[in-house]
Amino acid sequence: MSKPRIKTYDRIVEESLVLFNEHGERSITTNHIAAHLGISPGNLYYHFRNKEEIVHQIFQLYRRFITERLAVPQHRSMEVTDLVNYLETAFEAMWRFRFMFYDLPGLMARNPQLQTDYQQFVHSELTDILEGHFREFIRLGLLRMSLDDIAPVSVNIWLVVKFWFAFEQTARPKAPITEASGHRGVRQVLALLKPYVTPEFLPAFHALQERHPAS
Amino acid sequence: MSKPRIKTYDRIVEESLVLFNEHGERSITTNHIAAHLGISPGNLYYHFRNKEEIVHQIFQLYRRFITERLAVPQHRSMEVTDLVNYLETAFEAMWRFRFMFYDLPGLMARNPQLQTDYQQFVHSELTDILEGHFREFIRLGLLRMSLDDIAPVSVNIWLVVKFWFAFEQTARPKAPITEASGHRGVRQVLALLKPYVTPEFLPAFHALQERHPAS
Repeated sequence: MSKPRIKTYDRIVEESLVLFNEHGERSITTNHIAAHLGISPGNLYYHFRNKEEIVHQIFQLYRRFITERLAVPQHRSMEVTDLVNYLETAFEAMWRFRFMFYDLPGLMARNPQLQTDYQQFVHSELTDILEGHFREFIRLGLLRMSLDDIAPVSVNIWLVVKFWFAFEQTARPKAPITEASGHRGVRQVLALLKPYVTPEFLPAFHALQERHPAS
Repeated sequence: MSKPRIKTYDRIVEESLVLFNEHGERSITTNHIAAHLGISPGNLYYHFRNKEEIVHQIFQLYRRFITERLAVPQHRSMEVTDLVNYLETAFEAMWRFRFMFYDLPGLMARNPQLQTDYQQFVHSELTDILEGHFREFIRLGLLRMSLDDIAPVSVNIWLVVKFWFAFEQTARPKAPITEASGHRGVRQVLALLKPYVTPEFLPAFHALQERHPAS
């Protein structure tokens, strides 16, 4: 009996993510989710007390995605391709979980548990991850910057990543958010890093820019 | 008869701005505004058909504030103090009209006229203003950067300014937005400019940083 239950649970989370990304979390109710899955509202409530619990579960996926995929490698040293992968992974995370970032303040105001966990995630885990990467890239000679610059530049990167889709949405409200928007976001983050790129790293950096064409 | 009418109109706009900034626009109704002003709802509706018209009028004030205070001067050349003033004015605008930036996508979704005018303002006026300033600062030898960098750096500055308060709100949801938050925002924008500052401009730049202490 336990296997189908787990399956329904996971399907609710996955399909809710699809619906939230497509229509925004505000306009999707638990009834929409149940209808979309072809299950009864009662079945959905067997797994989740309310929509906030589903949103919170999606946040856990996001958190795991970030911490696993963006961790500084333990058993090898970092390489140029890591910088590339990290940036692309950061934007992939934003794209996959984009409904969370359309209106993060509003979402958190309606979901106190999410708010608490999100704070904790940002303060303890994310800041360490970002600043750890910078120190590695400086040590590897890919970036040249004073250690005092790491914190403010990390904050700016985080802010641009986090609000990129909201920025695009207010700048082009009629256009849907697409992967091209993600490419433009990567280019904006690369523009933040560009002044710190060392000459040795410049060819790889240009190649990275070209993988994210302006549109 | 026309003088008191104008006065009530202006008072509605001014006091709505105060209420929106303090409590958020979503939780303030036209009835709250009328009660706060000690006027009847009917008197308020004589001037404004609905709350969206008041919000739109506040946006016009914001737009005028930006275009008048951030214009490139016509009859004299720009100076170091202009860069300082512009940054402080940009954050003063964000601070004065901060309710608009708590949840700009949501605000615009509820107010199509605002959305149209905001787009037009950003695309035609604001981009020109920002890029015009960069060209001036480069010409004056305060900043050194390639002309190709102007557009992406301008976008990053605009994004950091626009979402700074939302970023702080999600990072410290229990803390109210204060002027110290504005100082931190100015420092983040200065961090974006720092790699481009010329040695001649560095002393003035450091003085500017010190006017916006970290807290």
